[in-house]
Amino acid sequence: MDTVHVQSSPTKRPQVVIVGAGFAGLNAAKALKDAPVDVTVIDRNNHHLFQPLLYQVATAVLSPADISAPIRSLLRKQKNTRVVLAEVTGIDRDQQCVLTADGREFAYDYIVVATGASHSYFGNDQWAPYAPGMKTIADATALRRKILLAFEEAEHETDPERQRALLTFILIGAGPTGVEMAGAVAELAHVALAQDFRNIDPRSARIILVEALPRILPVFDEGLAKKAQEGLHNLGVEVRTGSAVEEVNEHGVVIAGKQINATTVIWTAGVSASPAGKWLGAETDRAGRAKVDQYLNLPGYPNIFIVGDTCAASQDGKPIPGIAPAAMQGGLYAASVIIERVAGKPASHPFHYHNRGNLATVGRSFGIADLGKIKFSGFPAWLFWILVHIMFLVGFRNRFLVLFQSLWGYITFQRGARLITHDGSTSVRQKQETPELLIR
Amino acid sequence: MDTVHVQSSPTKRPQVVIVGAGFAGLNAAKALKDAPVDVTVIDRNNHHLFQPLLYQVATAVLSPADISAPIRSLLRKQKNTRVVLAEVTGIDRDQQCVLTADGREFAYDYIVVATGASHSYFGNDQWAPYAPGMKTIADATALRRKILLAFEEAEHETDPERQRALLTFILIGAGPTGVEMAGAVAELAHVALAQDFRNIDPRSARIILVEALPRILPVFDEGLAKKAQEGLHNLGVEVRTGSAVEEVNEHGVVIAGKQINATTVIWTAGVSASPAGKWLGAETDRAGRAKVDQYLNLPGYPNIFIVGDTCAASQDGKPIPGIAPAAMQGGLYAASVIIERVAGKPASHPFHYHNRGNLATVGRSFGIADLGKIKFSGFPAWLFWILVHIMFLVGFRNRFLVLFQSLWGYITFQRGARLITHDGSTSVRQKQETPELLIR
Repeated sequence: MDTVHVQSSPTKRPQVVIVGAGFAGLNAAKALKDAPVDVTVIDRNNHHLFQPLLYQVATAVLSPADISAPIRSLLRKQKNTRVVLAEVTGIDRDQQCVLTADGREFAYDYIVVATGASHSYFGNDQWAPYAPGMKTIADATALRRKILLAFEEAEHETDPERQRALLTFILIGAGPTGVEMAGAVAELAHVALAQDFRNIDPRSARIILVEALPRILPVFDEGLAKKAQEGLHNLGVEVRTGSAVEEVNEHGVVIAGKQINATTVIWTAGVSASPAGKWLGAETDRAGRAKVDQYLNLPGYPNIFIVGDTCAASQDGKPIPGIAPAAMQGGLYAASVIIERVAGKPASHPFHYHNRGNLATVGRSFGIADLGKIKFSGFPAWLFWILVHIMFLVGFRNRFLVLFQSLWGYITFQRGARLITHDGSTSVRQKQETPELLIR
Repeated sequence: MDTVHVQSSPTKRPQVVIVGAGFAGLNAAKALKDAPVDVTVIDRNNHHLFQPLLYQVATAVLSPADISAPIRSLLRKQKNTRVVLAEVTGIDRDQQCVLTADGREFAYDYIVVATGASHSYFGNDQWAPYAPGMKTIADATALRRKILLAFEEAEHETDPERQRALLTFILIGAGPTGVEMAGAVAELAHVALAQDFRNIDPRSARIILVEALPRILPVFDEGLAKKAQEGLHNLGVEVRTGSAVEEVNEHGVVIAGKQINATTVIWTAGVSASPAGKWLGAETDRAGRAKVDQYLNLPGYPNIFIVGDTCAASQDGKPIPGIAPAAMQGGLYAASVIIERVAGKPASHPFHYHNRGNLATVGRSFGIADLGKIKFSGFPAWLFWILVHIMFLVGFRNRFLVLFQSLWGYITFQRGARLITHDGSTSVRQKQETPELLIR
């Protein structure tokens, strides 16, 4: 990229549209900083979100703004780039333009589709109201509210069975998100809230992590996964592997024909790609991800790149995982091919994913690190996790804040963001306020 | 208070109910820590809010959790105290009990009513939808959203008149909140966002502070108020004193028969007390505040205390202002009288408000301080303001965080919490999400 300079050509420069400013889209945009193109980044949110820490918002450790940064300010100094706040509703691959909900059209010469993923209930969408998942800030603050209100309601519940259900938290899916979230909920209940109530003992709360597969953390080495399971056990989390969820209903979850009553059920299992694959008429896999060629192109369209969680790429016969490092690498790669093609050159090499390893934490001081040849666990892995995540945070104050709050939380066992916020539908709310004030 | 010890009497201890955990209620509860009473603190929010910094949430400097703390954790170690999350809907002064929206009743021997205030439109409630005020976290995040979205919409607006309206911000009322908020909006537009857009120049945004009285900051010394006005002028705020607002409508504001179009109008003028005065059948003043006797009691009811913004107390013929220090002093005083009365003693002295002075900031590095004999302005007053506010913050991590973010913001001119969050009513929103997820 060092050899490419901005042309001061009088002719119109190639238009690159990037849809989605997650890890993939943002890195594609940044890599085009000095390219002789005009870049338009479209996102329906004004902020880039550091999704791997979203569970910390849901468990009241961090504030939404701690893991978000305005896309505009991240790309402020990039003079060839503009940022558009809009919801994309379709892509016309023949007219080469992007359509938005407010009726605007953005023409492109090259497009990078990086619209991410949502959660999937594997055909059981009727479970969604009872077992919310976690992909956006709104999801996380809704979950935070739900979890904190469960303790509040339990405090004044007189029916012991209902109180039991209010203090039961079920997480469905024991991938990294499920494991990290389960640990965080357990520590919230068993440590942070332990002395805050008078009628209930939050330490008696049950946290159940359910997994259909025979083991937790399938992407990790089996020995490390065992360590993580011990870590969860030490935090008081009940891990139920080999347990397929048969039903999620308003009372809780049915496993092996048995109903477990729980007010809070959290979906940490499947993801499904955003509808971008459909917009493009692409062939998609079971999870809705668009199949791409070795250049991350929609087959037959060398100007359409599909990256991050939206695409189904594989390498050495294995799918490339839907994680932040893979998304970042995909975004950077797409930008590099665009730069080559704009210069009239063919792509120098196909996309190659570098697996730098897997990390997860189990609660406040225990982690596992699977770096290929090097594997370790315990406090060193937790510290390594913290450092890596802070380094990853996209170049701003948040890295200091997150570090500070993590350490502060570690020292004091407190939760800094134990905030129950309301909207108009709750009873615990100021009556005089106008509807305008209720929009957040 | 040192002479009062917890009785281990077998008889039931006096029940003290405190309604509202703002500055007044929280300080009353804390002062009853070692008193031989059972304390019940009822609030409709789970958090105590540091209201004087609310405008910093509305202008994307701080996160909601930075200026809030869970009431439970603040009172955790106080064994004679329980916290109840509920909305109080009435007080039966004859039956001596408090009623909540969820149908519960709380009997009291003594009650401290500290339910605060809301904003008042002086009989023009139809203005409320167009000129929201700021008393709760929800108000502040709604305003933050509205302000940030105005710039986003201006960026793609093609009609110059409408673009002008989107970039015009009118604040009605030049008390401390109006002045501080105007400075913060000006710095947001003219500095923090200055380089983030491509089609608009946020530096061209108009910020107009309207005041019906002939001068700003009537509670301050006139010389200091002049300095503050100069400070506002330097930040690019247009100050219009002696300008009564005749109408607020969907297009903006009418002043002196002239319509000024503005998408964002913010109400920083009047406050009206919560309906507690009505519940109690108290005589109220024009702003709905209950009149109290020299012991902050509802006249004729020595077991009913009304404190903070809910009461209309006066001293030396002047009303005691509705500010945090006065509320704290009122709460502490009510607790001291309860302790005396429980011990069978009469109140040793009537309530006396100690005016420790007034502080305000104008933007990022200019303040005014009116400490009676000592008056100063400029950077030293700003620094003094920061320190005082941090010291006031109620004993927890937030004081570090707020200091850190204030300094960081000062160094970098950035806004840390530039987050537009959505609810279901906006178009820029993930479609797949269930209604459950939209509650924040």
